[in-house]
Amino acid sequence: MTPTLHDIRQAAERIKPYAHRTPVLTNASLDQKVGARVFLKCENLQKVGAFKFRGACNAVYSLTDEEAARGVCTHSSGNHAQALALAAGMRGIPAYIVMPDNAPAVKKNAVAGYGGVITFCEPTLEARESTMEKIRSETGATVVHPYNDRRVISGQGTAALELLEDVPDLDVIIAPVGGGGLLSGTAIAATELKKGIRVIAGEPEMADDAFRSMQAGEIIPSVHPRTIADGLLTSLGTLTFPIIQQRVEQIVTVSETGIIETMKYIWERAKIIIEPSSAVAVGVLWEKKIDLSGLKVGVILSGGNVDLEKLPW
Amino acid sequence: MTPTLHDIRQAAERIKPYAHRTPVLTNASLDQKVGARVFLKCENLQKVGAFKFRGACNAVYSLTDEEAARGVCTHSSGNHAQALALAAGMRGIPAYIVMPDNAPAVKKNAVAGYGGVITFCEPTLEARESTMEKIRSETGATVVHPYNDRRVISGQGTAALELLEDVPDLDVIIAPVGGGGLLSGTAIAATELKKGIRVIAGEPEMADDAFRSMQAGEIIPSVHPRTIADGLLTSLGTLTFPIIQQRVEQIVTVSETGIIETMKYIWERAKIIIEPSSAVAVGVLWEKKIDLSGLKVGVILSGGNVDLEKLPW
Repeated sequence: MTPTLHDIRQAAERIKPYAHRTPVLTNASLDQKVGARVFLKCENLQKVGAFKFRGACNAVYSLTDEEAARGVCTHSSGNHAQALALAAGMRGIPAYIVMPDNAPAVKKNAVAGYGGVITFCEPTLEARESTMEKIRSETGATVVHPYNDRRVISGQGTAALELLEDVPDLDVIIAPVGGGGLLSGTAIAATELKKGIRVIAGEPEMADDAFRSMQAGEIIPSVHPRTIADGLLTSLGTLTFPIIQQRVEQIVTVSETGIIETMKYIWERAKIIIEPSSAVAVGVLWEKKIDLSGLKVGVILSGGNVDLEKLPW
Repeated sequence: MTPTLHDIRQAAERIKPYAHRTPVLTNASLDQKVGARVFLKCENLQKVGAFKFRGACNAVYSLTDEEAARGVCTHSSGNHAQALALAAGMRGIPAYIVMPDNAPAVKKNAVAGYGGVITFCEPTLEARESTMEKIRSETGATVVHPYNDRRVISGQGTAALELLEDVPDLDVIIAPVGGGGLLSGTAIAATELKKGIRVIAGEPEMADDAFRSMQAGEIIPSVHPRTIADGLLTSLGTLTFPIIQQRVEQIVTVSETGIIETMKYIWERAKIIIEPSSAVAVGVLWEKKIDLSGLKVGVILSGGNVDLEKLPW
């Protein structure tokens, strides 16, 4: 079932004691550079360094005590796994995380650091799903999908809710799109709160399955995408795609060069660390494929998890 | 004349339309690491990327229209020059900046980019002062010293004023010390607003002239300091030193290793870009030479101006 604005408002109340209310930053140089008035919603400053904590936290705290006691599970090697582990830890329940055994050590350590109970499996989708199903049936844990989940989408939508509380007269709101959890939550919050607001997504040119899905009118899976924006590799979900079709004006693709340039510019000028996926959203303004000049544009910065030893410049 | 809390409050009103009210961030990992509850006042997110904009802006907007029309001048190659150029540009008046001709191109460009009128001179203090005096007598511009100036100190104190508005029950407030403008402004604001609050300074071990000045009871000049914290190379001023003697509990020195480790940790965990001088303040907590465990500690992050091509790790 599609989440509503009411769900997002409930999520906001539910996660309030646990999540950061992230700041909204403005930057005069950036405004001048892109020719718009930009408001950066800093989910890079969220717990675990990404918006993912909102959805995971909402899912964990939506459970009844009885459900919660059996824990939560997911298969993921990214920010969602960390976010779910942290949220579960806060509620004092187990988070079972299935990870491919070839996941980078830094990701394994991060999930373990937040108290996640890791089960390794072969690095195939089949192995991940069967391993998770085995854990679920043994423990009775609740599966929390990284994006194709009503509770998760509602949680992700709380970032846009806060942004529009702080800056009610936005003309446009931009979010990056991977699986579509953040984008669909953002789109529901924005279009329900403000009639006529334009919701635009940024997507890497090199992982443009959402762009192609919108053209085709059906979900086109992402096949071997190669982009620096490693948070945006996944395909759209059956729950997120219809919301995006209905509420998102367009998906704008951003080049790899544009992503890196934008990322460096934000580090240098705004003095915040953003990951390439965040730069994809700002990149929509940077590359100026569409005309947003003179408008008030909110941008959701998805996160700031970057390996400082391997910078792309 | 020593600035008062009243001056700082006036400065806050004066700069409000021009300066960012910077966010105060918290970070659970950092708290756990250092064993205290830390509140980071993010002057790295201030205009020009440093607290310096507060003092410069207050000085520029303190001038009468007649004074202002003749412009402002300073000799500096750092953040103060950029800050003064920007503030003067906002008021539509000239900022004459004397810079040594061997200043890095990036600093020249930054000052020029903010509209500063640059005059180059030999890289000696004598040449800088005589060149500035010549400009002053020709133009009638008002000299704005980077720290030994009542208006500047008052402006710098507004960061602590805001921090204590946001977190009134701090036990301790830490600022880095170079010339002492930020530290003295912070100390006045903090000790006047909250009886019993402890004001502590962080200083690089390799540029410990303020530490030695406190021991000696007189200003010991900084001679050829060699530290990565290039914002903290200057000596204390005749106006700042007595304030620091009176209101600062102690100056704690931080090793170069401690500065770099702290800086990297903040980038990785808090997802914000801080310059080494900011890391010196957090470094007081990091190195644990003094016991602040369990306390609520506000830290003024001085700035975020770093060359991303030359990271110290």
